[in-house]
Amino acid sequence: MEKKIPYKIYLEENEMPDKWYNVRADMKKKPAKILNPGTLQPVTKEELSGIFCEELAAQELDDTTPYFEIPEDIRNFYKMYRPSPLVRAYCLEEKLQTPAHIYYKFEGNNTSGSHKLNSAIAQAYYAKKQGLKGVTTETGAGQWGTALSMACSYFDLDCQVYMVKVSYEQKPFRREVMRTYGASVTPSPSMNTEVGKKINAEFPGTTGSLGCAISEAVEAATTQEGYRYVLGSVLSQVLLHQSVIGLETKSALDKYGIKADTIIGCAGGGSNLGGLISPFAGEMLRGEADYEIIAVEPASCPSLTRGVYAYDFCDTGKVCPLAKMYTLGSGFIPSANHAGGLRYHGMSSVVSELYDQGLITARTVEQTNVFEAARDFARIEGILPAPESSHAIRVAIDEALKCKETGEAKNIVFGLTGTGYFDMVAYQKFNDGEMSDYIPTDEDLQKSIANLPKVEL
Amino acid sequence: MEKKIPYKIYLEENEMPDKWYNVRADMKKKPAKILNPGTLQPVTKEELSGIFCEELAAQELDDTTPYFEIPEDIRNFYKMYRPSPLVRAYCLEEKLQTPAHIYYKFEGNNTSGSHKLNSAIAQAYYAKKQGLKGVTTETGAGQWGTALSMACSYFDLDCQVYMVKVSYEQKPFRREVMRTYGASVTPSPSMNTEVGKKINAEFPGTTGSLGCAISEAVEAATTQEGYRYVLGSVLSQVLLHQSVIGLETKSALDKYGIKADTIIGCAGGGSNLGGLISPFAGEMLRGEADYEIIAVEPASCPSLTRGVYAYDFCDTGKVCPLAKMYTLGSGFIPSANHAGGLRYHGMSSVVSELYDQGLITARTVEQTNVFEAARDFARIEGILPAPESSHAIRVAIDEALKCKETGEAKNIVFGLTGTGYFDMVAYQKFNDGEMSDYIPTDEDLQKSIANLPKVEL
Repeated sequence: MEKKIPYKIYLEENEMPDKWYNVRADMKKKPAKILNPGTLQPVTKEELSGIFCEELAAQELDDTTPYFEIPEDIRNFYKMYRPSPLVRAYCLEEKLQTPAHIYYKFEGNNTSGSHKLNSAIAQAYYAKKQGLKGVTTETGAGQWGTALSMACSYFDLDCQVYMVKVSYEQKPFRREVMRTYGASVTPSPSMNTEVGKKINAEFPGTTGSLGCAISEAVEAATTQEGYRYVLGSVLSQVLLHQSVIGLETKSALDKYGIKADTIIGCAGGGSNLGGLISPFAGEMLRGEADYEIIAVEPASCPSLTRGVYAYDFCDTGKVCPLAKMYTLGSGFIPSANHAGGLRYHGMSSVVSELYDQGLITARTVEQTNVFEAARDFARIEGILPAPESSHAIRVAIDEALKCKETGEAKNIVFGLTGTGYFDMVAYQKFNDGEMSDYIPTDEDLQKSIANLPKVEL
Repeated sequence: MEKKIPYKIYLEENEMPDKWYNVRADMKKKPAKILNPGTLQPVTKEELSGIFCEELAAQELDDTTPYFEIPEDIRNFYKMYRPSPLVRAYCLEEKLQTPAHIYYKFEGNNTSGSHKLNSAIAQAYYAKKQGLKGVTTETGAGQWGTALSMACSYFDLDCQVYMVKVSYEQKPFRREVMRTYGASVTPSPSMNTEVGKKINAEFPGTTGSLGCAISEAVEAATTQEGYRYVLGSVLSQVLLHQSVIGLETKSALDKYGIKADTIIGCAGGGSNLGGLISPFAGEMLRGEADYEIIAVEPASCPSLTRGVYAYDFCDTGKVCPLAKMYTLGSGFIPSANHAGGLRYHGMSSVVSELYDQGLITARTVEQTNVFEAARDFARIEGILPAPESSHAIRVAIDEALKCKETGEAKNIVFGLTGTGYFDMVAYQKFNDGEMSDYIPTDEDLQKSIANLPKVEL
C-alpha cells in the first residue's frame, strides 16, 4: 500500500548519506582530462596542488572511485542544515490542475541561502586538515562567497573574498553577511594584487569582472604562505560534494516508493544540476533505470544548447586548468541577466560529457518568463525563489502543464537551489514591468567561440 | 533508555497540533478586559467586529475556551513551512563548554522570515471566510507586512499595507517582497486617507511613524466596504495562533523525554514569547509542572521591567481598544534600537498578567551585547539571527555560562523567531563598531507614563 506522502519528506539523521557519489566512476567514456593552462598537457596532482588543497586536487582527478566517505566533521556540519526537505508541491499541483506529481528539493534553508554551502564546508575542511591558514576566492552575486565565509568561520580559517566591484557596491547586504562571518571582502579590482593594480592602471574607474576577481584570488592564494584557492562550481570536486543533494533526493523518494520520471535542474556552471542528477545518472549509466533529465539554462547564456564541445579556459583570467566542456568561449560576456549564478560561459565537464552522451537534454528559457514562474511559485508554494532556481521552476511548470494535456501522472522532480532574498532588485524590475529579454545573435556567439584556445592532444 | 537526540527534531506531519491553545482558559485571574477607546467600557463583540473579522473578535474576547480547532485550510498552509525544527545547539554547547543542553525553536525557515506568518495566515483565513475583499494593516520593519502579504496571496485577498515612510524608503527589499506577493504598499503618511492628508499638511516632509500608519490602516479598513484591519502582535488572538510554536516545542521535547528547565523568549508586543510559553505556562497554572520563564526585552524599551501595569492605548493613534498591560505610555518613543520588532511601548495583556502573577520573570539586555551574541551564534550555529531573536540568544548564552559555573545540566529552550537577512544595515553598524546603546532615564519614562489614559472601572 502506498504511504501517504507528506508535504515535506525529511530523512532521519541516520538516513543521511555518509558518502559522496562520484558519477565519473560509472561513466564508460570519462570526461576529458583537464589541462595545465601553460603546457596544455594533462595537469598532474602535483601541479594542481599548487592551487588547490591536496585532497581536493586528488578528488578532482579521480574518475574511478565511486564513493568518497564524508568526513565526520563535515557530516556534523551538514546536520545543522541538512537533510534539506524534498517537498511535494501539493498547492502548485492543485493550482495547475495537473495529474503530475511535483517534488522539489529545497536547498535554501540555510543562511547562505543556497546549495553552495555543501561544497564550501568540504573545501574548508580539507584546507583546515592540510594545516592551511586560509583560502581565497572570488564572488559575483555573492552566494558562493557567503557560503565559503560561513564554512571558514566554522573551521576558524581566514577567508579572503574578492568581490566584483559593481556587486560590492550594489549588494552591500551580501557583503555584510560575509563580514559578519569574519571574511575580508575586497572590491575587485583592488590594489592588493599585481593583477589588480595593473587593471586599475589600465582601466581607471572599472567596476570589475568575475574574470578579474578570479585572477586576483588566484594570485592572492599563490603568493601568500599557507593559502589555497577555492571555487564554488564547474569543478568535478564540487559536483562530488553536491552529490549529497541527489543522494538525499533519491533516498527520500525511495522511502515512499516514488520513481522519478523527469528530473529538472537549472544549469550555470553545473554544480547544482550535477549534484542533483548524479545518482540518477549513475543508474542510467549502469543500465538500472531510465530518467528524463532536463538542464535549464538562460536564453542569454546558452552554453549547452548553442555552445561547442571543446577545450576552453574555465576562467576569463586563463589561470585555472582548461577543461573540455560545452562553452560559448571564455570571452563571452552574457547580457545583464538577473540570474547571476547562471551567467557562466561554460558547463562542468561532467555535465558536458553526460549531455554529449545523450543522458541529459537541455532547454533555454527567457528571464521574464522565468520571473513569472518565480512570482507564481512564491505565491502558491510560499517560498520566494532565487532567479537561478526559477529557471527549473519554469520548466517544471511547463512539464506539469503538458501532463495536464496528456493526462499523464508523471513524477516531476526539480532542484530549488536557493532563495531570492538578495535578488529583490531583480524582482523590483519585474514588478515594475521593466524587465527585458536578450538572446545573443549567432554572430555574437561565433565571435566569442572563435577565440577558443588551440589544443592538440 | 534515552534516545539519541538529533541536531534537529522534526515532528511528523501527523504529530502537528490540530488545535491552538488559549492559555487564558487556565488562568484563575484573567487578563483585564479590553476597553472601547471612546467609552472606556469593556468592548463588545459587536463593537470589535467593526474593526476585526467576526471570528477573530470572538477569539479576542474568549478567555474560557481552552482549545480552538485549527481549520483544515490553515493546517494545510502550516504544512508548507511547519513543523519548524526544534534544534539542539550541539555546536554552541561545545563552544561554550557548558553542561547545559540548549534547544531553540527556529521560526525563520519561511519566506516571511519569522513566526509572524503563523497568525497572518489565520487572520487572512477568517477574513476570507467572512467573505471580505481584503484587509489593511501597518508595518514598520516589514516582517508583519511580508507575512500578511503571503497569507493574503494564498487566499486571494486584497492586502493593503501602510508602511512607515522611512522604512519604505530604507527597506526597499522588504517592500518588493510584499509587492511580489501582490500587496499594495503605501508609504505612510499618504494622501489616501483623511488622517494621512492631515498629517502631511501639518508636518510637510515627515517620514512617518507606526502610530500614524496604524491610524491610516484603521481608517482604510473602516471606510472601504468589505475590509477589516489586522494586527500582528499584542492581541490575545495573535497569541492564540502563535501557541502553535509552544505546542510543537512541547511535543518535540516530549518525544525525546526532555523536560525543559528554562524557557527564554524575546518580548516586544509578546506574540512570540506568548506563543512559545503558552502550553508551559498552562502546566504551571494547572500545577502540573514548574519552569523558569524569562522574557527578554531591550534596555532601550523596557516595558515589563520598568513600565507600569495599567490601562493604555495599544496604538499611538488611540483608535484600537485599550488594554491593561505593562506599558511605558503610548507616547513613549524608544531610541533607534535595531530590533524594530521590540520597539513597542507595551506588552500583550496575557503576558503582562502572567508576569504580574509571577509566572514569568523579565530581564533587559543592551544591543551591542545582543549583536555580539548574534554574531557568535551565526558563526557557531550557522544561522544569521534577527536582532529581535538575538535578545533571547544573549540570555540563553548567559544562562548556559552560569551552568558552566554551577555544573548544572539544565535544559535551556529559547525561541529563535527569525532570520536577519533584512537587518544587514544593523549588522553593518555593528561590524563597523558604530553601534551604541541607549537606556532611557527615569525622567524620560516618568514623562511618557504620566500621560496614561484615566480609566475608572
